[in-house]
Amino acid sequence: MPERVAYFGPAGTFTEEAALRYAPQGELVPCPTIAAVAAAVVAGEAQKGVVPIENSLEGSVTDTLDLLIHQSNLFIQLELVLPIVHCLMVRPAAAQKDIEVIYSHTQALGQCREYLEEHFPRATLVASLSTAAAAEQVRKSDHPTAAAIGTARAAELYGLSVLSRGIQDNPANVTRFVVLAHTDHPPTGDDKTSLCFSFGNDRPGLLYAALGEFARRSINLAKVESRPTKQSLGEYIFLIDLHGHRDDPGIKEAIQMLRAQASVLKIFGSYPRYAASNG
Amino acid sequence: MPERVAYFGPAGTFTEEAALRYAPQGELVPCPTIAAVAAAVVAGEAQKGVVPIENSLEGSVTDTLDLLIHQSNLFIQLELVLPIVHCLMVRPAAAQKDIEVIYSHTQALGQCREYLEEHFPRATLVASLSTAAAAEQVRKSDHPTAAAIGTARAAELYGLSVLSRGIQDNPANVTRFVVLAHTDHPPTGDDKTSLCFSFGNDRPGLLYAALGEFARRSINLAKVESRPTKQSLGEYIFLIDLHGHRDDPGIKEAIQMLRAQASVLKIFGSYPRYAASNG
Repeated sequence: MPERVAYFGPAGTFTEEAALRYAPQGELVPCPTIAAVAAAVVAGEAQKGVVPIENSLEGSVTDTLDLLIHQSNLFIQLELVLPIVHCLMVRPAAAQKDIEVIYSHTQALGQCREYLEEHFPRATLVASLSTAAAAEQVRKSDHPTAAAIGTARAAELYGLSVLSRGIQDNPANVTRFVVLAHTDHPPTGDDKTSLCFSFGNDRPGLLYAALGEFARRSINLAKVESRPTKQSLGEYIFLIDLHGHRDDPGIKEAIQMLRAQASVLKIFGSYPRYAASNG
Repeated sequence: MPERVAYFGPAGTFTEEAALRYAPQGELVPCPTIAAVAAAVVAGEAQKGVVPIENSLEGSVTDTLDLLIHQSNLFIQLELVLPIVHCLMVRPAAAQKDIEVIYSHTQALGQCREYLEEHFPRATLVASLSTAAAAEQVRKSDHPTAAAIGTARAAELYGLSVLSRGIQDNPANVTRFVVLAHTDHPPTGDDKTSLCFSFGNDRPGLLYAALGEFARRSINLAKVESRPTKQSLGEYIFLIDLHGHRDDPGIKEAIQMLRAQASVLKIFGSYPRYAASNG
């Protein structure tokens, strides 16, 4: 039986592309929200869940961070990094000069801003719930002059023609996805560990002391980030990605020391570091 | 002549509310994007610009952070904190039981998720570019059964009736806004300073060492956050809000030390700390 893999859908989004890359033979299950992906794995409707966690231009996908922090007890088992290639697509008969309305997710519209200003200064930009929803809107639209920005696969799924490929302004546009599961990954020798922690109060030096536990043991931090606790403005939860596995003795010890200082500490998992050569 | 204040519009958004609070007598100039607000101030079309920078639930407004980091040489002159009160609004004749479609910005839809699931489990949720645009869509819609989520002022502006007020799931929903100007603020004795810095390379202990400059001088950090450099995944710019003014001797010294280690350091400004009692 093929593995069932839930992903933040619908079909035709970049997350579907990541899910296909992760499980080419898997049975893919689209979910309408990031929370629904986790729920599908928790409920056993899928063994794995694929969600975006970070884009090189936009930063973190806060819905995914907040899910890991507040709601889910799933682990990160794997990470994948995919280049984001935006395409401009229209109905088969339409030509570039006819385009008056362009649909896409606001993030995709933002990532193609310079291209749009140069080529479609007078077009109306309309927000969609996802890049795939934009393609669907164009397919169903009464407007023969509508276009969408999304994946090449969305064009294929919705019977649209790609007029231009790679229209994003910044070529360094990649997204990191994570595979959520009931367990994380055994050590491979080149791993990352993600965790979060917070302090019950606002004392100044606490984050500094926490980072010291890692610095003192020469543990490389790949990322330090903060999210609101959602209780009061100015209270934060810190998220750290570090190089190494949570079973490595030095990391184990640093986390133990940190746990003694923090009011909350949650390990999201250890997983193989994605090698650029794989991409 | 009244002061001209640009804000991230259109009229009827929470940012307009903040701009009105900041300059009740000012001439308010709505701008379509956060970048356009800064551009209006730089071009002299407005003396000040009001933009959102952080929400207690959603976290930072990354467009504003990226503007401060990458584009603008404006300063933060003031901060304001406003409670976010979402209203459900319809055309005057419509009743709650008729509602089939609900428009709003995706963030507002997300902030009212539990309310919507409880009261409108079957309604179609449609993304809008802003809460005010949602109100306008309802005003212009052929659907007599459409509703919007937004500010009470948007209801007023677009001739809609408020059916429910304060429908956000979490009462601790406040947004911090900043006033951008050509200068920051002289010391008041209770100030904050915002700045960012990054390191040319990825050495582990650098952030730790940087934070040490502040910890060693007992300077309280209100916030530590990271944003992508937009050059390569895994390279970050760190943003810090600290308590105190950049003219305070200890802070001046810490920033000097930090500047010697960082490849980039930019001060966004010092400004009076917003007192909760003002809100």
